[in-house]
Amino acid sequence: MVTQELARFLATHRPEDVPERVRHEAKRSLVNFFATALGGCRNEAVEILIAALADSFGPPHATIVGRSERADALTATFFNAVSSNVLDFDDTHLRTVIHPTAPVAPGLFALAERRPITGAALLHAFVLGVEVECRIGNALSPGHYRRGWHITATCGVLGAAAAAGKLIRFDAGRMAWALGAAATQSSGLVENLGTMSKSVGVGNSARNGLAAALYAERGMSGPERPLEGPRGLAAVMAEGANLSSVVHGLGDSWELMQNAYKPYPNGVVLHPVVDACLELRPQVGDVERIERIVVKGHPLLRERTDRPNVTTGVEGQVSLQHSVAVAFLHGAAGVKEYSDACVNDPAVLALRAKVTAEDDASIPADAAVVSLRTAAGEMRSAHIAHARGSIARPLSDHELEDKLRDLAGYGAPGIDAGQLIDAVWALDKTKSAGDVMKIAAPGSN
Amino acid sequence: MVTQELARFLATHRPEDVPERVRHEAKRSLVNFFATALGGCRNEAVEILIAALADSFGPPHATIVGRSERADALTATFFNAVSSNVLDFDDTHLRTVIHPTAPVAPGLFALAERRPITGAALLHAFVLGVEVECRIGNALSPGHYRRGWHITATCGVLGAAAAAGKLIRFDAGRMAWALGAAATQSSGLVENLGTMSKSVGVGNSARNGLAAALYAERGMSGPERPLEGPRGLAAVMAEGANLSSVVHGLGDSWELMQNAYKPYPNGVVLHPVVDACLELRPQVGDVERIERIVVKGHPLLRERTDRPNVTTGVEGQVSLQHSVAVAFLHGAAGVKEYSDACVNDPAVLALRAKVTAEDDASIPADAAVVSLRTAAGEMRSAHIAHARGSIARPLSDHELEDKLRDLAGYGAPGIDAGQLIDAVWALDKTKSAGDVMKIAAPGSN
Repeated sequence: MVTQELARFLATHRPEDVPERVRHEAKRSLVNFFATALGGCRNEAVEILIAALADSFGPPHATIVGRSERADALTATFFNAVSSNVLDFDDTHLRTVIHPTAPVAPGLFALAERRPITGAALLHAFVLGVEVECRIGNALSPGHYRRGWHITATCGVLGAAAAAGKLIRFDAGRMAWALGAAATQSSGLVENLGTMSKSVGVGNSARNGLAAALYAERGMSGPERPLEGPRGLAAVMAEGANLSSVVHGLGDSWELMQNAYKPYPNGVVLHPVVDACLELRPQVGDVERIERIVVKGHPLLRERTDRPNVTTGVEGQVSLQHSVAVAFLHGAAGVKEYSDACVNDPAVLALRAKVTAEDDASIPADAAVVSLRTAAGEMRSAHIAHARGSIARPLSDHELEDKLRDLAGYGAPGIDAGQLIDAVWALDKTKSAGDVMKIAAPGSN
Repeated sequence: MVTQELARFLATHRPEDVPERVRHEAKRSLVNFFATALGGCRNEAVEILIAALADSFGPPHATIVGRSERADALTATFFNAVSSNVLDFDDTHLRTVIHPTAPVAPGLFALAERRPITGAALLHAFVLGVEVECRIGNALSPGHYRRGWHITATCGVLGAAAAAGKLIRFDAGRMAWALGAAATQSSGLVENLGTMSKSVGVGNSARNGLAAALYAERGMSGPERPLEGPRGLAAVMAEGANLSSVVHGLGDSWELMQNAYKPYPNGVVLHPVVDACLELRPQVGDVERIERIVVKGHPLLRERTDRPNVTTGVEGQVSLQHSVAVAFLHGAAGVKEYSDACVNDPAVLALRAKVTAEDDASIPADAAVVSLRTAAGEMRSAHIAHARGSIARPLSDHELEDKLRDLAGYGAPGIDAGQLIDAVWALDKTKSAGDVMKIAAPGSN
């Protein structure tokens, strides 16, 4: 009985049973969450969704990160999940490709704005929610994503429900009901990635997970075995799921320790390429001098990102040629470098034309070699063994803070980024976790 | 390109292209919709969901059928879908077992309370929405439901999106986007049936279908091929789907003509059994005289409903013994006869103990033979060739009106049922379709 065993674990787990390093990683995930939510909160998809739902906003109980609008807890939860994920710049659980925080964190902060909840309780619930979504993701992988399920959305809703249920202090019975109400709302198709409607699945996972907990709180019954039953989540949504792994070693290992944070808002295989370009750039001086750039990497790199001709920012995010060009030209590969304007800048186009890619199966996926020749015949080369932001070379706390500052400046300049960073690091000492949200929106401080 | 062809059909179809008999069937479906929504609007699941979501209600733009609370369009849509389906007494598209009206109608009425929409336009959109959900259901059947997908919820969201999109007068491009936003929200597990959380899937299908249309209206892009793409709905959620059937003969045949309405709120295989009991009842006089009752039917009947010992109303709905007992004792098998109280009534228990079932593979599933012997040794028998409410013997308009009156009396006695019935029959002549909802809730008339 996987569901019941998981529910009992969640109901009885204590904050002091979370190791300090896991608690710190949770805070790092939340710094990254606020960074990407602030960066994404003015994205076109968010604006469209705000306009479409404005007529249905409930009472202004909860903050929409980076924006002046407020809404009911469920609606704010939806938007904060969308904003934090929309730039493809949020965290990644590498084994499953789940973006863990977007579905789980927003509902917790929305609850904390409405009920008395300590920072320690929120952090604990967050750790458990991420554990649930990633363990279920592990159990359904690789068949689930391969079939076409957008795993962040489909598994996220279960993590969101578990986390909210923990915050409401569910016993095992209510927790199982909440997981059941989440399972029957699990949805999201890979077909929609690359279009704005990707955001609907991610937003729903957070919103509907919170709703599942609110339903269970009031006594809405669910099935005994929503995960493992004959018509439950695993049977219906995956081939060859290994459900026992959901509960094996629960509380001993922590999936949050496998969470990675992107230094650049582009495809993860491009990260070592950008690192190499940024390393070479000071050696080149004037980029006009560059005659040719060759990128060598694992065959996956060329397969996924060999796109010399791109016209939109979204395409640029998965273009090796564009990423190389902006790294040399601008010394950066941030959200501005993946705007439509930058992708169509003639100087960028000119440099893109000089970039080619070559396969080398001996190079791991988080490594790359970039070589260039100048018009004068000089040769330069940089080899990156592990990309910044990989598990082997994680972003430092300081780099995460810089990411938040940069993205706040881009998407929500009215925010006091430093104060928000301090508040997240101090979260486990905070009496009222909801107060953090006051710093995360303009004019409501 | 199934999606694009379907979207073009929907965008260009005109009200006058709907045959009169189809338009009348649409009104019959809506009479049945209001009947079951009024009957279900005080159900425990509805009360729990109201309590859980009360904190998130948006502005009171839309009516919740049978209740005094009002809410934003999306929330009201959710509740009206739940209420109309929660008693398992709503309509059935027999080929797919989709309950077509619960997902599609609520969003249309909610839109009509907020925008100027004629009854004729609403009726047209409703016909098209049912066509979309049932055709997609046909294409995914039987693999989809068999795998464990609750087909009313999973296909309903697409019908709801198409219908709302038609009401907003989408061109083919927006319609395809709406279908894409619906496809990525398609969810609902059979595992949850028999628990209150079934209602979440049905409510979401209506709510999220409307939301999909509102998103597309504001310009949220979606994939080109949400239905037929490699990671689209059919590939991900069904085995061996026959997608060409979605568009084959569009506009020539109408799935609404395959819609059936239940005379009793129990399993459809029990309907001929109840018919036979009600036919025999006047011949018996005092039910105390009955010594034994034998029900003969298709093996499916015994397989699904041979439940002599039941303790809840929900179990009673799929119990042959209970259905026979109440038909003889009360001369009825309505919502009151499937209450927990009635299921535990000693007189009902005593009669249930006298009922047995026998298989006869020569009897079709919509037929049954009920035989009884009295203590005095008399034998009586009734043979029902086609159950009331089957396609071969549909409920008359008058019987549907009686169903609405009965269920309004049960769930929402403050309603003027006669006025509501008249309003539905006159819908195609009504300038403001939203006015119908004023009659469907107490104290707002």
